[in-house]
Amino acid sequence: MEKLRVDLGERSYDIKIGEDILANLGQYLSELEIGKKVLIISNPLVDSLYGAEVEKAISEAGFEVEKALIPDGEKYKSLDTAKDLYDEAVAAGLDRTSSIVALGGGVVGDIAGFIAASFMRGINFIQVPTTVLAQVDSSVGGKVAVNHPQGKNLIGDFYQPQLVVADKKVLHTLEERELKAGLAEVIKYGFIWDEEFFSFLKDKREEVMNLDTQAVIKAIKTSCAIKAEVVEEDETEQGLRAILNYGHTIGHALEAVTNYDCYRHGEAVAIGMVAAARIAHKLDMLTVKEVKEHEELISDFGLPIRFEGVDHDQIINALTKDKKVEDGVIRFILAEKIGKVKILSDIPEAIIREVLAEIGGE
Amino acid sequence: MEKLRVDLGERSYDIKIGEDILANLGQYLSELEIGKKVLIISNPLVDSLYGAEVEKAISEAGFEVEKALIPDGEKYKSLDTAKDLYDEAVAAGLDRTSSIVALGGGVVGDIAGFIAASFMRGINFIQVPTTVLAQVDSSVGGKVAVNHPQGKNLIGDFYQPQLVVADKKVLHTLEERELKAGLAEVIKYGFIWDEEFFSFLKDKREEVMNLDTQAVIKAIKTSCAIKAEVVEEDETEQGLRAILNYGHTIGHALEAVTNYDCYRHGEAVAIGMVAAARIAHKLDMLTVKEVKEHEELISDFGLPIRFEGVDHDQIINALTKDKKVEDGVIRFILAEKIGKVKILSDIPEAIIREVLAEIGGE
Ligand SMILES: NC(=O)c1ccc[n+]([C@@H]2O[C@H](COP(=O)([O-])OP(=O)(O)OC[C@H]3O[C@@H](n4cnc5c(N)ncnc54)[C@H](O)[C@@H]3O)[C@@H](O)[C@H]2O)c1
Ligand SMILES: NC(=O)c1ccc[n+]([C@@H]2O[C@H](COP(=O)([O-])OP(=O)(O)OC[C@H]3O[C@@H](n4cnc5c(N)ncnc54)[C@H](O)[C@@H]3O)[C@@H](O)[C@H]2O)c1
Ligand SMILES: [Zn+2]
Ligand SMILES: [Zn+2]
Repeated sequence: MEKLRVDLGERSYDIKIGEDILANLGQYLSELEIGKKVLIISNPLVDSLYGAEVEKAISEAGFEVEKALIPDGEKYKSLDTAKDLYDEAVAAGLDRTSSIVALGGGVVGDIAGFIAASFMRGINFIQVPTTVLAQVDSSVGGKVAVNHPQGKNLIGDFYQPQLVVADKKVLHTLEERELKAGLAEVIKYGFIWDEEFFSFLKDKREEVMNLDTQAVIKAIKTSCAIKAEVVEEDETEQGLRAILNYGHTIGHALEAVTNYDCYRHGEAVAIGMVAAARIAHKLDMLTVKEVKEHEELISDFGLPIRFEGVDHDQIINALTKDKKVEDGVIRFILAEKIGKVKILSDIPEAIIREVLAEIGGE
Repeated sequence: MEKLRVDLGERSYDIKIGEDILANLGQYLSELEIGKKVLIISNPLVDSLYGAEVEKAISEAGFEVEKALIPDGEKYKSLDTAKDLYDEAVAAGLDRTSSIVALGGGVVGDIAGFIAASFMRGINFIQVPTTVLAQVDSSVGGKVAVNHPQGKNLIGDFYQPQLVVADKKVLHTLEERELKAGLAEVIKYGFIWDEEFFSFLKDKREEVMNLDTQAVIKAIKTSCAIKAEVVEEDETEQGLRAILNYGHTIGHALEAVTNYDCYRHGEAVAIGMVAAARIAHKLDMLTVKEVKEHEELISDFGLPIRFEGVDHDQIINALTKDKKVEDGVIRFILAEKIGKVKILSDIPEAIIREVLAEIGGE
């Protein structure tokens, strides 16, 4: 089992990464200073695969375990579902010393974290992420939220977990498309922070995609380490943390315009990273070769680098509605080279349109 | 205008206290680092009294002001109302730099603060408290919340405002009973922290109750200063902060058993402080004289020191269901002398029952 520490003063916590470590959950929880009651929040699919194992591990360590399931799907990451979960938390008799364990992907993690953050003004929270995206991204860093009909993650908080347990084993049951989409975020870390990691991913592409244990654990660990480093420096997204949104500006716009039912998040981010690379090239920040390296790595991981059938005006329109827009200024994260990015605003719309024309020819 | 600073590192803020200072709100807001958009949250009654003045002051300073009203009453401090307010925040086009101004009593302040804490993971929050309770207690210290059908303030957060503006003037329109109930919390600060303040209140009782400007401002300022000191030492209620719940253990139980429609919160706390004093006496902590001093001050302020018609078994039962109970242990805040309290658990039920018999003879 590999261990990483996220260093946030009083809010510091460990990330444990390994193969077949769900069975140790009870022991891990015993090492925390938490009360007897544990509420597992999951969804029916993940629960059917890993619920019994997790429940057993935790209750055998002497905890009183209750379980609350929410329907599967992004649309249930809502205030309505949150309301049901508060009812379940009350019914389970949770008190201030109790804990919520999120067992699932980013949807479960985000809403469970929101409940943990707000129930009795904050109870203990443990993340057991079961998708690639959740293991390398959403479970680390403390962003928790539910969606509002008018915007994703519009209602939320910064609330750090007490522990993250990423078991590589669970990735084997992921749908192929889900797996690949999650890897888009892994690739992202190479582009924004770590050229060596970029090279590693290039070299070990096959091992990672075939879920070779060593390669995947290294990929998860490096991703989490990068995210931790960024979050340690900027927990509440005053500045640096925004670089984690590399590829997300255009990515989010694409998702929004296609009503979130055409692209997986990671796929949209993949296209968004290509767009960002091409914008950077037009601003003399990246060379043609570096743009090509973006596109090759992304497409080698089975992710899209082009799109079609989406109106460019709508994308431009969606960009200005993004939550990350402040006082009307759209921010882009652009690479200066592979492994280093910076935040820019005031990218001329003409350049964005040129790039859209290149990769999303109508 | 008097100014107090609540010292919480990055989350520090000022409390401004004065007579007729609402008109300066625009200027005060201009001194903060906040964006152009401001959403005032209030209720119809308070809005009809002070809404126009506040809106004018803020918009004349160059802010874009929107307003959202919630129905008057504790029962609207709910997740359902919160949902409406999120819709209003979206409709108002708030972004991360925007601010929410709570104009009202503790109900408005608590729910507006919950929205501010969770909208886009936290936007600027300004408290303009308009009841005594809100000016001396709920607007300071960052507890924000909505109620759950099964428990008050069950869904909430710690989220500090950026500024608190307490205008003594607005207290003149309070109903007499509301005014007195709020003063129970003022008296509380004397009992728990400051014997001199206790003496001040004894001496200046009439001035305070007649809303003499100087006496009231001194009472508000001293109360806020004590609360600030306690919160500075224990922002998230790990220990010390619990002393602010003096009188609240029995008080909450009384409120709960009577379905929150018999006693004002402050009235229940008044009775609760008498109960606490009598329990302390039975544990050889307070003298008979000190118990009498409790009762005299409380009743001189027109607050109840006895109750009737409430089943004692139900009170005992409610005590064990209180949110502040952890792993089954009921905590009491008891005074060692006037101006000094400590936190005790394991008070024998028999003693509690004896005291209930003394002050709530059936
Ligand atoms: N908090 C953050 O910092 C952050 C960062 C990025 C994304 N997010 C959020 O994460 C969410 C997306 O997360 P996601 O991509 O994990 O989606 P998801 O949680 O919807 O999971 C995708 C699908 O995989 C299933 N699944 C999960 N684990 C499985 C397993 N081991 N085997 C088989 N199937 C499994 C789920 O039931 C679901 O159907 C979004 O709501 C997004 O906003 C949050
Ligand atoms: N956050 C905290 O730390 C904290 C502490 C104590 C209490 N509270 C909460 O505060 C709430 C109670 O607050 P409250 O006692 O202020 O009640 P409230 O907000 O309901 O106000 C009482 C009544 O006075 C009216 N009112 C307000 N200002 C007025 C004015 N200037 N003139 C005339 N009428 C006015 C209101 O419309 C309401 O009808 C409870 O929900 C309680 O949980 C919170
Ligand atoms: Zn992402
Ligand atoms: Zn109170």
